[in-house]
Amino acid sequence: MTSLDDVMALVAIDSVSGAEGDIATYVYDRLVASDRLEVERIGDNVIARTMGHHATRVLVAGHLDTVPGDVGAAVIEGDVLRGLGACDMKASLAGMLDLALDEENRPVEVTWVFYAREEIARSQSGLVEVSEVRPDLLVADVAVLAEPTGGLVEAGCQGTLRVKVTLKGVRAHTARPFTGRNAIHRLGDLLSFVATYLPREVEMDGVTYVEQLQAVGVEGGVAPNVVPDAASCVLNHRVAPDRSRDEAAAWLRGYLGELLGEGDDLEIVDWAPSATPDLTNHHLARLVQLSGNAPRAKVGWTDVATFQELGVPATNFGAGDPLLAHRSDEFVTAGEVATFVGVLGEWLRSSGH
Amino acid sequence: MTSLDDVMALVAIDSVSGAEGDIATYVYDRLVASDRLEVERIGDNVIARTMGHHATRVLVAGHLDTVPGDVGAAVIEGDVLRGLGACDMKASLAGMLDLALDEENRPVEVTWVFYAREEIARSQSGLVEVSEVRPDLLVADVAVLAEPTGGLVEAGCQGTLRVKVTLKGVRAHTARPFTGRNAIHRLGDLLSFVATYLPREVEMDGVTYVEQLQAVGVEGGVAPNVVPDAASCVLNHRVAPDRSRDEAAAWLRGYLGELLGEGDDLEIVDWAPSATPDLTNHHLARLVQLSGNAPRAKVGWTDVATFQELGVPATNFGAGDPLLAHRSDEFVTAGEVATFVGVLGEWLRSSGH
Repeated sequence: MTSLDDVMALVAIDSVSGAEGDIATYVYDRLVASDRLEVERIGDNVIARTMGHHATRVLVAGHLDTVPGDVGAAVIEGDVLRGLGACDMKASLAGMLDLALDEENRPVEVTWVFYAREEIARSQSGLVEVSEVRPDLLVADVAVLAEPTGGLVEAGCQGTLRVKVTLKGVRAHTARPFTGRNAIHRLGDLLSFVATYLPREVEMDGVTYVEQLQAVGVEGGVAPNVVPDAASCVLNHRVAPDRSRDEAAAWLRGYLGELLGEGDDLEIVDWAPSATPDLTNHHLARLVQLSGNAPRAKVGWTDVATFQELGVPATNFGAGDPLLAHRSDEFVTAGEVATFVGVLGEWLRSSGH
Repeated sequence: MTSLDDVMALVAIDSVSGAEGDIATYVYDRLVASDRLEVERIGDNVIARTMGHHATRVLVAGHLDTVPGDVGAAVIEGDVLRGLGACDMKASLAGMLDLALDEENRPVEVTWVFYAREEIARSQSGLVEVSEVRPDLLVADVAVLAEPTGGLVEAGCQGTLRVKVTLKGVRAHTARPFTGRNAIHRLGDLLSFVATYLPREVEMDGVTYVEQLQAVGVEGGVAPNVVPDAASCVLNHRVAPDRSRDEAAAWLRGYLGELLGEGDDLEIVDWAPSATPDLTNHHLARLVQLSGNAPRAKVGWTDVATFQELGVPATNFGAGDPLLAHRSDEFVTAGEVATFVGVLGEWLRSSGH
């Protein structure tokens, strides 16, 4: 049984994004001791596979890194472990390690993926690195991404689109603003409108995705006495899996409507694709059943989208409250860890059927 | 008679703010040739005074610098001189030089002030430099500041207040924005409200000041996937001469009202004081009469406020259309130069009465 001490052993190893060397070594050393696993290290990513002859291969993945913070402050108080990475996602990693080293016979082959640099730009992701260098290691029939989900299945994920909107104006002296057009004032109207956005809800496979639209950056200004002729904002749009990047951008352009005029610009800055819930996949449907809870939609972005791009049906299922991720007061309970390990272990035992 | 060639001689000397050495030397050399003037150079400022025994001393001032641009593109086409600084304010400077060197006897002492660095931060102003090093040189009964005013008196000047407004929010993940409060969205509402500002008009000494309120800068944003917890804007408020800095700031705070809440901040960044019109001063009233036009209020800020701080009643009167200042297509006409020199010369001839 995975204990909070097992989780603490991982929490105590500083593994901020880009500095996962120590924790990768720790995980590698533990896994390589098993003669049932073929273990590979690629950079700071560790992949361990059973290499038997079962027809079905399942993959379980988790990231080794945390957001920045102080690992020294971690503490166990009774049934609760408080500390950086406790929830996101070293509780799940500890459970994965225990299940990987479990001697029990399973009716499936299992690939365990511990990867680096998930919390920073996707272009630096360790999972993307593995998919480029050794795509064969990620081949599987189904995958579970053990991000914190509160012990239930959070299906698929929403895409995330960033656009930069630049509004034009006409420069003028601020003592005679009527000879110009203030681009920052125009931006005010656009931001006020964005603030009135009512989320679109989309039901797929019985779960409901809730889109969002938020301004995440704003800039503008020429000089202290000049009516500015340009101002811009960056909008982050969370997109349900029924829309592509271009469909989302087209919707946004239409939504802003006449707030955009001649000479204004809407530029796509960034896009990470969504993933459909795939709850009709019989492996994932069984995971939902074993979890004992109704599934819900993952409204954030996760590497479930990366697995779906690789052709592997996948879902999110892990220990810890997802709302605590990246918070300074994150924690995980012994009960959450036990539930995760129990459900995932049972899923592996029954996945060959 | 001052010609466009005289103006061109000054326009041709590059004198962007901070690099007025050459034009100060040119002006100094011309003035020092007159045995009727006592000429001093303080840094790149040149002050020439008649030192007779008339009871009244009038002061005429103009700045030597221009905003950045290419002096090589200046050209005379018929009665029009187009080029950097033609309007703001080398036409007036050329007229001042001619009147300073005129041999005619006047019933007043005259101080001619040619100063540096007016177009940049007031803390760097050459006029402020002279007032600190040799305040005696600026003692006068009345002053004319020869900024472009279209050949009529533009009385006093409005103050200019800059405030930075910072709005707070609560950070959250952009996929779950309802757990936070978006400070940029709040800023949108504030900017939209500022855009609805209706100018307050204030009549003093028969001229009407028109206040303004404009956003001149905006910034905010934490990270691409974070609902931002702070955003700010800089507002520029043009303030009629009936209000002090603190009165203007108090008005602005009240105007924004409930758009500012707990934890928000309104900080005064900068203030340049206004100047009252002083059109009841008999010297300035006579200048209005000689101009042949009704006076109007100066809605921008000028060094008339500096003279008023020094205890010298002052007004704006110069050649060129003030709306052309700082524009790439600025120009001045031979007629505008002649009118300015004619009116100012007549004013000096009659100022002893």
